[in-house]
Amino acid sequence: MNIGFIGLGRMGTGMASRLLSSGTNVLVYNRTAEKASALRKQGATVATSLHDFAVVDIVFTMLADDRALESTVLGDKGILQHLCSGAIHVSCSTISPDLTSRLTQVHAQAGQHFIAAPVFGRPDAAQEGKLFLILAGNPDILAQIEPLLARIGQRSFVIGKEPVQASLAKLAGNFLIATVIESLGESFAFVEKGGIDPHAFLHILTESIFNVPLYKNYGEAIVAGKFSPPGFAAVLGQKDIRLLLQAGETLQIPLPIASLLRDRFLRLTAQSGGDLDWSAIASLATEDAGLLPRTQTMDHGPD
Amino acid sequence: MNIGFIGLGRMGTGMASRLLSSGTNVLVYNRTAEKASALRKQGATVATSLHDFAVVDIVFTMLADDRALESTVLGDKGILQHLCSGAIHVSCSTISPDLTSRLTQVHAQAGQHFIAAPVFGRPDAAQEGKLFLILAGNPDILAQIEPLLARIGQRSFVIGKEPVQASLAKLAGNFLIATVIESLGESFAFVEKGGIDPHAFLHILTESIFNVPLYKNYGEAIVAGKFSPPGFAAVLGQKDIRLLLQAGETLQIPLPIASLLRDRFLRLTAQSGGDLDWSAIASLATEDAGLLPRTQTMDHGPD
Amino acid sequence: MNIGFIGLGRMGTGMASRLLSSGTNVLVYNRTAEKASALRKQGATVATSLHDFAVVDIVFTMLADDRALESTVLGDKGILQHLCSGAIHVSCSTISPDLTSRLTQVHAQAGQHFIAAPVFGRPDAAQEGKLFLILAGNPDILAQIEPLLARIGQRSFVIGKEPVQASLAKLAGNFLIATVIESLGESFAFVEKGGIDPHAFLHILTESIFNVPLYKNYGEAIVAGKFSPPGFAAVLGQKDIRLLLQAGETLQIPLPIASLLRDRFLRLTAQSGGDLDWSAIASLATEDAGLLPRTQTMDHGPD
Amino acid sequence: MNIGFIGLGRMGTGMASRLLSSGTNVLVYNRTAEKASALRKQGATVATSLHDFAVVDIVFTMLADDRALESTVLGDKGILQHLCSGAIHVSCSTISPDLTSRLTQVHAQAGQHFIAAPVFGRPDAAQEGKLFLILAGNPDILAQIEPLLARIGQRSFVIGKEPVQASLAKLAGNFLIATVIESLGESFAFVEKGGIDPHAFLHILTESIFNVPLYKNYGEAIVAGKFSPPGFAAVLGQKDIRLLLQAGETLQIPLPIASLLRDRFLRLTAQSGGDLDWSAIASLATEDAGLLPRTQTMDHGPD
Repeated sequence: MNIGFIGLGRMGTGMASRLLSSGTNVLVYNRTAEKASALRKQGATVATSLHDFAVVDIVFTMLADDRALESTVLGDKGILQHLCSGAIHVSCSTISPDLTSRLTQVHAQAGQHFIAAPVFGRPDAAQEGKLFLILAGNPDILAQIEPLLARIGQRSFVIGKEPVQASLAKLAGNFLIATVIESLGESFAFVEKGGIDPHAFLHILTESIFNVPLYKNYGEAIVAGKFSPPGFAAVLGQKDIRLLLQAGETLQIPLPIASLLRDRFLRLTAQSGGDLDWSAIASLATEDAGLLPRTQTMDHGPD
Repeated sequence: MNIGFIGLGRMGTGMASRLLSSGTNVLVYNRTAEKASALRKQGATVATSLHDFAVVDIVFTMLADDRALESTVLGDKGILQHLCSGAIHVSCSTISPDLTSRLTQVHAQAGQHFIAAPVFGRPDAAQEGKLFLILAGNPDILAQIEPLLARIGQRSFVIGKEPVQASLAKLAGNFLIATVIESLGESFAFVEKGGIDPHAFLHILTESIFNVPLYKNYGEAIVAGKFSPPGFAAVLGQKDIRLLLQAGETLQIPLPIASLLRDRFLRLTAQSGGDLDWSAIASLATEDAGLLPRTQTMDHGPD
Repeated sequence: MNIGFIGLGRMGTGMASRLLSSGTNVLVYNRTAEKASALRKQGATVATSLHDFAVVDIVFTMLADDRALESTVLGDKGILQHLCSGAIHVSCSTISPDLTSRLTQVHAQAGQHFIAAPVFGRPDAAQEGKLFLILAGNPDILAQIEPLLARIGQRSFVIGKEPVQASLAKLAGNFLIATVIESLGESFAFVEKGGIDPHAFLHILTESIFNVPLYKNYGEAIVAGKFSPPGFAAVLGQKDIRLLLQAGETLQIPLPIASLLRDRFLRLTAQSGGDLDWSAIASLATEDAGLLPRTQTMDHGPD
Repeated sequence: MNIGFIGLGRMGTGMASRLLSSGTNVLVYNRTAEKASALRKQGATVATSLHDFAVVDIVFTMLADDRALESTVLGDKGILQHLCSGAIHVSCSTISPDLTSRLTQVHAQAGQHFIAAPVFGRPDAAQEGKLFLILAGNPDILAQIEPLLARIGQRSFVIGKEPVQASLAKLAGNFLIATVIESLGESFAFVEKGGIDPHAFLHILTESIFNVPLYKNYGEAIVAGKFSPPGFAAVLGQKDIRLLLQAGETLQIPLPIASLLRDRFLRLTAQSGGDLDWSAIASLATEDAGLLPRTQTMDHGPD
């Protein structure tokens, strides 16, 4: 079984590396070729063009956004025309439900299979095979690729038979994470201005009712004011909230917290660019309370 | 050491019961006396008036709001004038920072001690001694009451020396919980209208990045549309958000998600009264999306 | 000078009628032909296809949205290919800045002129020539069409040389009007529940600091709960807020009131469809306050 | 008929001056006495204490907030105990509905009359007798004081028989004004970042559908970034929104735009203090869009 992987950012590299480390050969590709070098050393075959993917049975894609995936699949030299009949495209990117539905359709028309498999987890989790995957698509095909997915993720969940369902669920999940970030930001500003060490407050939260890595990791980054380098760039968070709101508009669903998050991301990117980690929206609550940024005011030593 | 407990709602009864079950005698009191009957059977002495608390060394209070606690402590026949010098008042209610500061001061003037010890957890957790306590006050006094607190809670956290710090931290914590409720409500409306079973979506969340009872329990209640009987009434949730916003106004801290929650609680209580569980605000997102209430449309069997 | 008019909804019919009544012949067209009958009686020539517009020097378009205008201009049989070199396209629809820029470009490439001339005013104002026009485009061309515009509007304002500027200004203007509607809705709910007749309150407003027809007309409709037939349908208001927010996203501008309006429109259309007048979003504040809809509770007699 | 006036800020001084200029003698008082000097020169009698008001038939009060009015009326040496039976207290301050109801009651118990007469208009309008007054109270008493009110305002409106009605209506009116400010701020940020001169945009608005001094005056201040000296200080605007939200909470009315305004005022006062004009909240939209403050980037010459 020939396996391909397209999109070698930090997430994609980690995921492809997991596939490789289990002995499988993997044909890898990235638009800017230098990103493939680490995987080449690990034994991957580096494709020179998307044309090379004609030989794969299963291709994974992990790209930044709709546009990147669209051009990779549907562009002039896209994989849609190169993949054989019967090939499986496993799309791990967080993309719009609209594009997901369109890819489902065009791959089917080409006699190929499309699986949506967006993931929860940051680059370090990808590296360690600890992602969570949300799967949707044809159950027979899902069964077929299950062993591969098990190398990438610590756990997979099937949400339905239509790939668009995984796309919607992933956007809703990212919305919940962004809400955690914003609400931690507001609560830290509140306790800090009230004379409480936000570290101590976070410790209570994560040792009691919010005892889960998500709150711990984002909480620590926010309290430390550490938003760079980004694990997940603000510009991508903004993109996901936009996709959520667009889908919400199509489906006619008001989403007031998402609207608020949208304005936070716009403000952050307008003022600071989109290169910070998306958790930097939490710093806006600090600023609005008239507090100094936390990086300037605190030193928590060599931890 | 004589121990007293005032305020025998579902939370207070559970907590007093834990104290009793460890062999300690407890003098209990509730404004409406019949609520004391269960504890009487368990061995508690039932006070006939607050005057009886003259003999206790430590008195716990667990009351609904500022007004109830104020009248219990500062009223004509309040405990402030009855407690001996050196007595300790452990206040477990979620009350305003202002009242917390005032009680700290008046107890000190009376030669008494005031400890703020608000709790996280619902009535069943109180019954089982599984609450989390946030403590603030004089460290020597905290050390003294530590064994008692260990019977009530699974864990205690000291946030500072000033009782008001525990008050602020507790309000911030409740704000975070209410945010979880609202964001789950919005995300469930989104996935449901997008053709996904919200149960399946919740399962993914709580088996992956939100693997914590708070998301599980509230998530299940929301998906099932089960908001009655209340574990924590909407009118109390509304009160806590009001106290948070008032403190935020005094401290000059904008809290946009809290403002949104305020409007949700007002709408819920204006339309349905305040007797539902506070998680019922999540049903407003369902309603706004034009979906039928979940109780009417789903039957999940005899669970 | 041959004049054409495409798009004969209530607004377009009123505007074309004004052109006709000043003695000019007008070639009119609507996708569903029966809407042209009133103008035919008034003397207009009814085109059978867009091909007929090859003879006009100036063509006005007044269509519902981007899609309608796009297909009319750029579609297979669109006017772009029929209009002569030198022809002027005056676009009065409220459309996206993106489409405005695109039409500017393609008309220029075809040797034609594109003027953006969106209008403020409802169908009755169109009928009476009392619209306000925001103009942007080549100043020489604007000077040339000025006499025609004077028949349509009570006043015109040039905002710049780039058509996109009129498009942006119009969206910002509609945002301000929608804000008026929402804020009136909230204030009426407030005074009404406080025991004040909202009519009396509105009277004070519009006889003092808000002495302008916009507040009067919308205020009266809201107080009377009269949202049908629509002067401007909610689905169109929703569209305009969407275009505003999309432009705001491209330009990186948070717009918190606009986000709130978006959620109001989504809720209204999800619950009641989009056929009511857009001022019906004001009824949501009434509903949220637990008040009965105003139409059911008040009788203002035979006015 | 003896007339008194208490509270000689810029608003009060203007109003008292109007009463004086019509030939009436006026007994004036301010807590800090130097503020009375201009009126003394104009012929006013300056009271040395509130005790002096024992001789007046009608006393006007124009004070900053609840606390100031409360101490003036109900304090140890307050006017409640000095005024004769039958005296009329005309309260022009914007205060809470709660205090309004309380004053109505205590004055009635003292055999005195209480009229609520809050005003719309800024200091220059007060000086010129161009205020608008919202009146509520006993109709016979209103008839009696009507000639005096006609010197102060260009027009008066009776909203009801209960003073609290004027209080509620005034808060709702101020909410509408603050909404205008915020929405202009957002729209100016939008057009400016889109390449349009906000002056030109404002001109269109105020020469067409928003042709009313309120939009003109605030719009010009916002476009010029001129927020100092304040006509109405941000800290007072914040107070009014707080009173509105508190009344809304008591009456159970969600007010989403008001919630948003609350956060704007808190941010402004946390970051810049409360001394700027309340229209300075409009500068936050500019800041959030990543634009420079308008004062730094524009020079509109010597106007």
